[in-house]
Amino acid sequence: MKIALLGHGNVGSGVSAIIDKGNTSFTEQLKIKKILVKDESEATDERMVFNIDDALDNDIDIVVECLGGLKFPFACISKALNMKKHVVTSNKKVMATYYDELISLAKKNDVNIVFEASVGGGIPIMSNIRHTKRVDKINSFIGIFNGTTNFILDKMSKEKQGFKEALIQAQKLGYAESNPSDDIDGCDVKYKCCLTGNMVWDTSLNLDDITTFGIRTVSQKDIDFAINHQLTLKLVGRGIKTEGQVQVFVLPEYISNDDTLAHIPLNLNCIVFKSDNLGATSYIGQGAGTFPTAHAVVQDIVSLLNNENLKISTDNKVDINNREYISKFYIRTENLEYFKDYIYKKIASDVIITEPINLFKLKDLIEKTDDKNLFVAGVCYD
Amino acid sequence: MKIALLGHGNVGSGVSAIIDKGNTSFTEQLKIKKILVKDESEATDERMVFNIDDALDNDIDIVVECLGGLKFPFACISKALNMKKHVVTSNKKVMATYYDELISLAKKNDVNIVFEASVGGGIPIMSNIRHTKRVDKINSFIGIFNGTTNFILDKMSKEKQGFKEALIQAQKLGYAESNPSDDIDGCDVKYKCCLTGNMVWDTSLNLDDITTFGIRTVSQKDIDFAINHQLTLKLVGRGIKTEGQVQVFVLPEYISNDDTLAHIPLNLNCIVFKSDNLGATSYIGQGAGTFPTAHAVVQDIVSLLNNENLKISTDNKVDINNREYISKFYIRTENLEYFKDYIYKKIASDVIITEPINLFKLKDLIEKTDDKNLFVAGVCYD
Repeated sequence: MKIALLGHGNVGSGVSAIIDKGNTSFTEQLKIKKILVKDESEATDERMVFNIDDALDNDIDIVVECLGGLKFPFACISKALNMKKHVVTSNKKVMATYYDELISLAKKNDVNIVFEASVGGGIPIMSNIRHTKRVDKINSFIGIFNGTTNFILDKMSKEKQGFKEALIQAQKLGYAESNPSDDIDGCDVKYKCCLTGNMVWDTSLNLDDITTFGIRTVSQKDIDFAINHQLTLKLVGRGIKTEGQVQVFVLPEYISNDDTLAHIPLNLNCIVFKSDNLGATSYIGQGAGTFPTAHAVVQDIVSLLNNENLKISTDNKVDINNREYISKFYIRTENLEYFKDYIYKKIASDVIITEPINLFKLKDLIEKTDDKNLFVAGVCYD
Repeated sequence: MKIALLGHGNVGSGVSAIIDKGNTSFTEQLKIKKILVKDESEATDERMVFNIDDALDNDIDIVVECLGGLKFPFACISKALNMKKHVVTSNKKVMATYYDELISLAKKNDVNIVFEASVGGGIPIMSNIRHTKRVDKINSFIGIFNGTTNFILDKMSKEKQGFKEALIQAQKLGYAESNPSDDIDGCDVKYKCCLTGNMVWDTSLNLDDITTFGIRTVSQKDIDFAINHQLTLKLVGRGIKTEGQVQVFVLPEYISNDDTLAHIPLNLNCIVFKSDNLGATSYIGQGAGTFPTAHAVVQDIVSLLNNENLKISTDNKVDINNREYISKFYIRTENLEYFKDYIYKKIASDVIITEPINLFKLKDLIEKTDDKNLFVAGVCYD
């Protein structure tokens, strides 16, 4: 299999390292012919080229996109598909944003587009979704999809670090995305939930319908609430299927310490699927990092090499209806008066637990407070 | 695909339920033609037959063994392989005991024998080992492979139940194997570690070389030691590869509460693989039960249907050398004098932590005490 690798940064350099080494019977059948980098200054190898047309020559079987970003990778992937080349990408933003377009383009050109590395890094999420669905129906998922925010919350909880201090440490360790707002505002998790939901339910979810709250405003007070109640605060993404529709959202949640999800440390990811036969099955591992992510990319390439059925269906039309998700919520705000009709329990002068309300109502009330420092989290325990 | 199902108990009845329902594009292609049960008294279906020769007619493609036991299932599987039929089994004891014979017999007859359900119940352990190995090298595994003992230790730890009380509850809930000694003495975990090690390292491990300690003698005192030191007592199976040899053993261990493995509740299983690219990847789910286990059996059948490469290699000859595994150990015995030269720390009049010693030395000292109530556990923290 002849490969054009687009991008040679964090992920791309791992992909070329694993393939060039070729130390399994599968990876030894792979050959990287071209590597697209920005310009001469990044060229460290004779395979390196500086524009996309030089990378996509007729000889290439598979195009591997590890560029990051949105418009340029979208253009490159589209071009590759139109040239009838299989595409492997680690780019969750491109896949979640242009899912319908890219899946149809692949279908039209009778090639595959695969994106194992875009969700859960090295954890084999997509291959296990495909595997489970052969025999079973997946009804819901819940997961810690973002290592940076898990690292921050873990450090704030176990070592009483401040939010900023923990974020800086995460960036130093290379966990945080280039733009930390994608992490801390929950967008990164939104993309991943979108892709997970699409694969689980053979659909194409509307990214904008995924209600998303992040942890930008979390304070030690919110962490202490967890500690005092045998709970752990985690940023989770969830998908739940009900009759003919789904609920998909991103939300900090107070998780019971009896739940394994409460005990996922540092920058690890954990994704849990509930299905008819299996009950809950959880997958834990490195959600980012050069070699775990590159490993996932190479797995996709090997699946193409093995001629596996990687066709993706979007035939099952389901709408996201988060009005159906009802929960109690922890709210910390200086403007509690907007919640006065929905108080289940008063915790402090600026903290309440709401009565069970739906996610739309919640969003509406939060917008009314106009409080940029408001913190909200789901409360699932009783 | 035409299937003969041998056994219609806990697992077999789940297999026929999933296949007869046939509600995925894969399971609808499967057909159970014969079901072997003991006699007329168990016949609830016109497909049922009472002797193996009636089950294995020429029409059958796949034989699914869910009988339990050792000699009779071994005879049935051997007969099926010799008739050039693929075999799927959930029987860890048969597989671990006759691994070499069965793998060679399958090879000789150019058919496959697969056993996903024999380790970790519904958790896709074998398929993920196969998957990971395509790109990476697995260096070690550690796991909670037995739900019954995990349930007992969890109940003793969280609810201060006595050992017997917790065991009876596990039996009532249907978790305990027919013979609880296979669970509590660690044999069940031994079989599973043997099969896991065989698959991970393409070898055929000698079952008798797997050093095995169980939890039959565990007391509330041993549980309290964990609680007082932010540890959790778990029965784990481990495999570790070093240069040209492996260490494989079954041992209660005090696990740090910082480790996710310490937080696997009730009867769940958790198996962790460490590999070059991925670091640690963990799989958690139902390790037993009708539908999880039956799901795993049906997954194997679908893999055969899809003509996947399921060939098993035993070409990599490696010996188990547990003399190389060195650790501190918690020892509770009335006969502590045998350990007097190896004391790292005295905990109580009948409890010590040893200096780091190897597993052979440990076994030797334990045998010398001749104390049937001795309890031993690994101590990995510092």
